[in-house]
Amino acid sequence: MAYRFASDVYRHRLDRARTLTRAAGLDALVVSTGPDLRYLTGSRADTFERLTALVVPADADPRLVVARLELASVRDSALADLNIEMAAWVDGEDPYAMALAGLPAAARVAVCDTMPALHVVPIAARTGAIPALATDVLRELRMTKDTSEIDALRHAGAAIDRVHARMGEWLIPGRTERAVADDIRAAILDEGHSEAAFIIVGSGPHGADPHHEFSDRVIEGDDIVVIDIGGPVDPGYNSDSTRTYCFRAPAADVADAYAALQEAQRKAVEAVRPGVTAEAIDAVARDHLRDHGLGDAFIHRTGHGIGLSVHEEPYIVRGNDIELRAGMAFSVEPGIYFDGRWGARIEDIVVVTEDGCEPMNTRPHDLQVL
Amino acid sequence: MAYRFASDVYRHRLDRARTLTRAAGLDALVVSTGPDLRYLTGSRADTFERLTALVVPADADPRLVVARLELASVRDSALADLNIEMAAWVDGEDPYAMALAGLPAAARVAVCDTMPALHVVPIAARTGAIPALATDVLRELRMTKDTSEIDALRHAGAAIDRVHARMGEWLIPGRTERAVADDIRAAILDEGHSEAAFIIVGSGPHGADPHHEFSDRVIEGDDIVVIDIGGPVDPGYNSDSTRTYCFRAPAADVADAYAALQEAQRKAVEAVRPGVTAEAIDAVARDHLRDHGLGDAFIHRTGHGIGLSVHEEPYIVRGNDIELRAGMAFSVEPGIYFDGRWGARIEDIVVVTEDGCEPMNTRPHDLQVL
Repeated sequence: MAYRFASDVYRHRLDRARTLTRAAGLDALVVSTGPDLRYLTGSRADTFERLTALVVPADADPRLVVARLELASVRDSALADLNIEMAAWVDGEDPYAMALAGLPAAARVAVCDTMPALHVVPIAARTGAIPALATDVLRELRMTKDTSEIDALRHAGAAIDRVHARMGEWLIPGRTERAVADDIRAAILDEGHSEAAFIIVGSGPHGADPHHEFSDRVIEGDDIVVIDIGGPVDPGYNSDSTRTYCFRAPAADVADAYAALQEAQRKAVEAVRPGVTAEAIDAVARDHLRDHGLGDAFIHRTGHGIGLSVHEEPYIVRGNDIELRAGMAFSVEPGIYFDGRWGARIEDIVVVTEDGCEPMNTRPHDLQVL
Repeated sequence: MAYRFASDVYRHRLDRARTLTRAAGLDALVVSTGPDLRYLTGSRADTFERLTALVVPADADPRLVVARLELASVRDSALADLNIEMAAWVDGEDPYAMALAGLPAAARVAVCDTMPALHVVPIAARTGAIPALATDVLRELRMTKDTSEIDALRHAGAAIDRVHARMGEWLIPGRTERAVADDIRAAILDEGHSEAAFIIVGSGPHGADPHHEFSDRVIEGDDIVVIDIGGPVDPGYNSDSTRTYCFRAPAADVADAYAALQEAQRKAVEAVRPGVTAEAIDAVARDHLRDHGLGDAFIHRTGHGIGLSVHEEPYIVRGNDIELRAGMAFSVEPGIYFDGRWGARIEDIVVVTEDGCEPMNTRPHDLQVL
């Protein structure tokens, strides 16, 4: 796939963003580099202290404020095709004044989630108000994936499934987590990802830390090993899948707990359909584990939205009463963690359909004995 | 070197941060993950949507707010050694209320530069005010490097110099920029960096874009090639050095322009000493190039501070009238760019001493014919 969609896709998204900006009673969105900018323009630009920002006014055409020496970084986006005005600034000029030019003096603006405080604070100071979050406007747009985006997620899911399918080549007792991670990284790239965004090889007690990455620990023959891997595939949509492995038949208590986890994950996926709330999906997994005495072992939310960001809305978590709709994409990934001993997690990405969901990952869910 | 300094270093930094917070009339600093957190605690934690934040109140001991499942990510920092309270939260709780707990209702807080709007906005909403930037408080601390930090920068500088010294092994006409970049990346890691943070291989016309990375362009025998490379070396301090290469004696106009650039860079470095302003250093390079008819070819600032961040204060730019002091570290990197044709840049990191500066990079500055 190409690194971005056709320019018309972005024209449509920009039009909708403007409509939503107006509907939200805002004067403008200000979107610095990151997934929102990529969503709206296809740009992969990545800047920090020099402001690059797309300004989407409610009542005027969008325009880009960009440091002159970063102009090349947006050339491959849809901005030129769409004839979007680019206001270039040089070191020493005030890019915030340029971003707010043409807006009312006390403009009500929303900034993207990823904008660093370095830019948020001067924008807030110039408008005299705490900005809103653009997510509140773009949520509706980004959360519901269109057919091309679902295709891209399917493509990414198949790529990471191919990596999991080869796990037995690398995950071998006597090797370090780091050596295994190195092989996985190469395979993630080989299978079409543009980056290995994250690799967790949590062997034995390290599996009990959901955010362990990898270490020099030597993997042992009776370890349970959590492998959680993924990254972006052009045009930038992410894979993210976890499977749990071992090397011999597990002890009875491990097998029992794992069976409860597998059932919790299956039931949560089965519960996904339009109209159900995000927190209800979380509750399905959580209640099942609690009923099997594993409530305390499940120490994180059930899932997160995914797309151009690895983590985005909708979050599948207690307190999130958003109703699922067709086109939403998120992980379903309950886990169980026993401090100092072992852990397990099963994670699929699913996309909500008209009457259920389509999993992007299709590898077996059992505790896989390599 | 180890990935962090001894815990006493961080105790001292935290004490100074608290003193400066009080002196600035603030109730607290709120520092999420990134270079400021690494500076204050040695933590390499990296989180996005789940708030991990060190709170440094003016009138109480510092404490950390951290998602329970991220606790392991801060274990290797100095926080445990220093008995800093860790308030762990689970998905569904309000980490912002926890961060602001114990502070006055309308607390005056400062947030770190890198904190994403996702966290800045809810913190601002709870205090009812636009936060200040913690940089305004931490600037004085982070900008002036102590002996251990200067050692670390020297170490990083020597590592990237060893990579430049080997450039002739890889930079060969007929190869693509990407192939050369791959070899450079391996060498950056081999020479002790923990990451190849950036690699620019700007050959021929690509050299005219200061922020070009690398492409599939095949390098030609009469190209001028800009190589700008660097990354962090434990305990996290960055290298960053640019040299310009070619493969045969350059044309007279290229040689003349390059000679002016080399002299501009030399004069700017020579002007560095305590008491001189950052913008005066910029002016030295800029004036020299302007006097040689190259004013329009120099399209960016002369340099940026460096340390735990690749780009930090002090910025060597028009409008920055900060006076240089011993211990400040920054790049001196004038460049000249001729759209569609070629470009050149020379970059050294220097550390201000009592009576001048010490360069961290010592490779020859000429246009190097490989």
